[in-house]
Amino acid sequence: MNSFNDTIVALATPPGEGAIGVIRLSGKDAIIIADKIFAGKDLSAQSSHTIHFGRIMEGEHTIDEVVVSLYNGPRSYTGENVVEINCHGSNYILQKVIELCLREGAQLAKAGEFTQRAFLNGRMDLAQAEAVADLIASQSSASQQAAMHTLRGGFSEELKHMREQLIKFSALIELELDFSQEDVEFADRTQLYTLINEMTKGIKELVQSFKLGNVIRNGVSVAIVGKPNAGKSTLLNTLLNEERAIVSEIAGTTRDTIEETLNVNGVLFRLIDTAGIRDHSADVIENIGMQRSKDAMKRADIVVYMFDASESQKSDVVSLREELEQDGVKYLLVGNKVDALGLDAAKDKFNDANILFISAKERENIQQLKQRLYDIVVGGEIKQEGTVITNARHHHALQRVLSSLNDIHSGMDNNIPGDLIALDIRRCLHYLGEITGEVTTEDKLDYIFSKFCIGK
Amino acid sequence: MNSFNDTIVALATPPGEGAIGVIRLSGKDAIIIADKIFAGKDLSAQSSHTIHFGRIMEGEHTIDEVVVSLYNGPRSYTGENVVEINCHGSNYILQKVIELCLREGAQLAKAGEFTQRAFLNGRMDLAQAEAVADLIASQSSASQQAAMHTLRGGFSEELKHMREQLIKFSALIELELDFSQEDVEFADRTQLYTLINEMTKGIKELVQSFKLGNVIRNGVSVAIVGKPNAGKSTLLNTLLNEERAIVSEIAGTTRDTIEETLNVNGVLFRLIDTAGIRDHSADVIENIGMQRSKDAMKRADIVVYMFDASESQKSDVVSLREELEQDGVKYLLVGNKVDALGLDAAKDKFNDANILFISAKERENIQQLKQRLYDIVVGGEIKQEGTVITNARHHHALQRVLSSLNDIHSGMDNNIPGDLIALDIRRCLHYLGEITGEVTTEDKLDYIFSKFCIGK
Repeated sequence: MNSFNDTIVALATPPGEGAIGVIRLSGKDAIIIADKIFAGKDLSAQSSHTIHFGRIMEGEHTIDEVVVSLYNGPRSYTGENVVEINCHGSNYILQKVIELCLREGAQLAKAGEFTQRAFLNGRMDLAQAEAVADLIASQSSASQQAAMHTLRGGFSEELKHMREQLIKFSALIELELDFSQEDVEFADRTQLYTLINEMTKGIKELVQSFKLGNVIRNGVSVAIVGKPNAGKSTLLNTLLNEERAIVSEIAGTTRDTIEETLNVNGVLFRLIDTAGIRDHSADVIENIGMQRSKDAMKRADIVVYMFDASESQKSDVVSLREELEQDGVKYLLVGNKVDALGLDAAKDKFNDANILFISAKERENIQQLKQRLYDIVVGGEIKQEGTVITNARHHHALQRVLSSLNDIHSGMDNNIPGDLIALDIRRCLHYLGEITGEVTTEDKLDYIFSKFCIGK
Repeated sequence: MNSFNDTIVALATPPGEGAIGVIRLSGKDAIIIADKIFAGKDLSAQSSHTIHFGRIMEGEHTIDEVVVSLYNGPRSYTGENVVEINCHGSNYILQKVIELCLREGAQLAKAGEFTQRAFLNGRMDLAQAEAVADLIASQSSASQQAAMHTLRGGFSEELKHMREQLIKFSALIELELDFSQEDVEFADRTQLYTLINEMTKGIKELVQSFKLGNVIRNGVSVAIVGKPNAGKSTLLNTLLNEERAIVSEIAGTTRDTIEETLNVNGVLFRLIDTAGIRDHSADVIENIGMQRSKDAMKRADIVVYMFDASESQKSDVVSLREELEQDGVKYLLVGNKVDALGLDAAKDKFNDANILFISAKERENIQQLKQRLYDIVVGGEIKQEGTVITNARHHHALQRVLSSLNDIHSGMDNNIPGDLIALDIRRCLHYLGEITGEVTTEDKLDYIFSKFCIGK
């Protein structure tokens, strides 16, 4: 366990006025510092994991009436002594309380420093620490589940298991080197093959999950394109309004962050707000061949191409589909305005099971549209409970693990000497350890935690 | 004590991402509802005022790892059972946890409903409840002190004391009415005179404190005017930059709210951002007689009129002072650019002890400028520890108390019958009771609490 001499303090809740604001202290002197500004009880004499009502004082002045929670290290978030001060959520008061803590010897925490200390004190590994930031940033059920799985150690367990088995072989192979004159094999090559194959399979799955993980973390961009009057604005509004109605029930939480996003079964879709998608007159996409439309489509993960089912002809749609196939984009062909034409008539007219017919105006088949979007992205692949890699750093390290595994495998195929295999195994262990932070440097840590918010 | 059948829930911390977000439940079923979504312990079996680590679950899914604080009524903020759930500060998670509480039977809290319940359950009187909102909105030491004094019951105590004495007389006078045939006086008129005089003095002081209270609560608006190149922008920047430097030490708390404010000894000065004060070319105040400059000055509580001490003549300043006096505004004459002229030369040149000479560029006498602003507003009058009325509703009610006291006094002077005096006393008691909420209507309460934020 590391031991830090200084005690850090920061606002742990978002800035702004609210009923409650929480200030967090962590470090050797957290309780001593809190005691100096707290009136009502002797905090040092209290048990861990207790709460206490009292007042924060600046000399004779009562700054606030507060509730203080005490956590004695190592049974705390950071592994150090931690004090959380629940104040009234006034900017002035929160700033004042932080000032008083600084005056009594605390240091202002750097971004992510609480979690960094939790890692350095062995309360969580690096992958778990990174999941804290992902959890806080999560905007959908899928991203929350992925982060929670990692935070609870699911991913780390998988890696730990692989690492332990590999270390065993590594030890045996290095033992062989000591007896290299005698040409013995302590490490059973067949078992090693099996392990390498199993690991390769597992790591490959993890690497592949990153594609989904990226989607889960960052959302899927969707461009709704089509000729003027195909009903693009109506569809956008129908999709967004429904979403807004759901969210605005929970007042004051996320209203402004969902402006242009759509949550389908926990996956976040970002509707690309290209000028003109909403405004018929300003930036009309006349033709699928037009450069602008192409650009919007290139930027998108999925293109929803809408046409007016009552006015378009079958031949138009056939050539449209050919163009879309040529462009190699993921697309969904949507025939709108079936309220005018009738659903059966539309199906007869175009005779194409892949076209989804909707009425944006009458909200017909909107649910099916959402489901199709979801299926295009996720298919049947989503592993709700398994590990999904959402972190680019982990993805990068896993690719290197995979390449080391390949090297080990081909090395054994080619009967290379044990000491070279041992080197490859060590390289593989190194990259595995980088993910969970068994192997790391201070610079790298500072970089990783600097992306956190202050107070975390 | 009122008893509410429903349990309310709301986010208690400001919306936005942060390390911690707190969700608060209050009501009969608060602990039962929390138990349904909490895994780790049986919350109903735990003692009051304890904290518990565990997980919030949606079926099989872990939504978050949380710390839950339990408060059994009536020893809680609202007087009801209260549960505070400390979550990770993710919008998605916080929204989800609120949704889960709603699903288990909680109602979304209305604005101010937690504090309203605290009042209705007798945990605080109305003046104290209103002080909670003032405390949260406080932006300076003076406003925080005034709100804290009221929240801690200082104001209520004064009123309660007056009210009790007046009730005693009221009872005696009403007793006289029962014996009206016999022409007895149970209530000693001399003592009543003394009481009414004392109360009048006390209430007058409170009414007068509102002027300061208003300043404390809302800040003092200051317009910096003067000819182009007098150095207005430089002064504004000098004042603001210094403030920003102080505040930005405490990262992430109030940076954006202090944009145009200046805190001097705990009193907040708002520097009026009239277009042109910062931009020399856009909206030049050429002449003190100009309409625009007049408007800016009218809106301000204090006008800082700057002139270039090195270029202006004594006669200019004399006529300037006359104009300012005519306008009847509070003003401060500031001669800038003494770095060019020299302080002693400037003093000799203008021979006016009321002019403050500064160098905005060299930061000379800036501290004195701040002190002068403070003195203009507060003078020696500020009662740091006493009650300062900051609430317009209280001010209004106190004015009515004062007028009833006058009526009682003049009634006694004119020897009016006891039953009429009793009526005036009852009216006086009514207005006193309105402040602390002994006398109120549901509509009025709803109006008062609707100005609170949700979650308080």
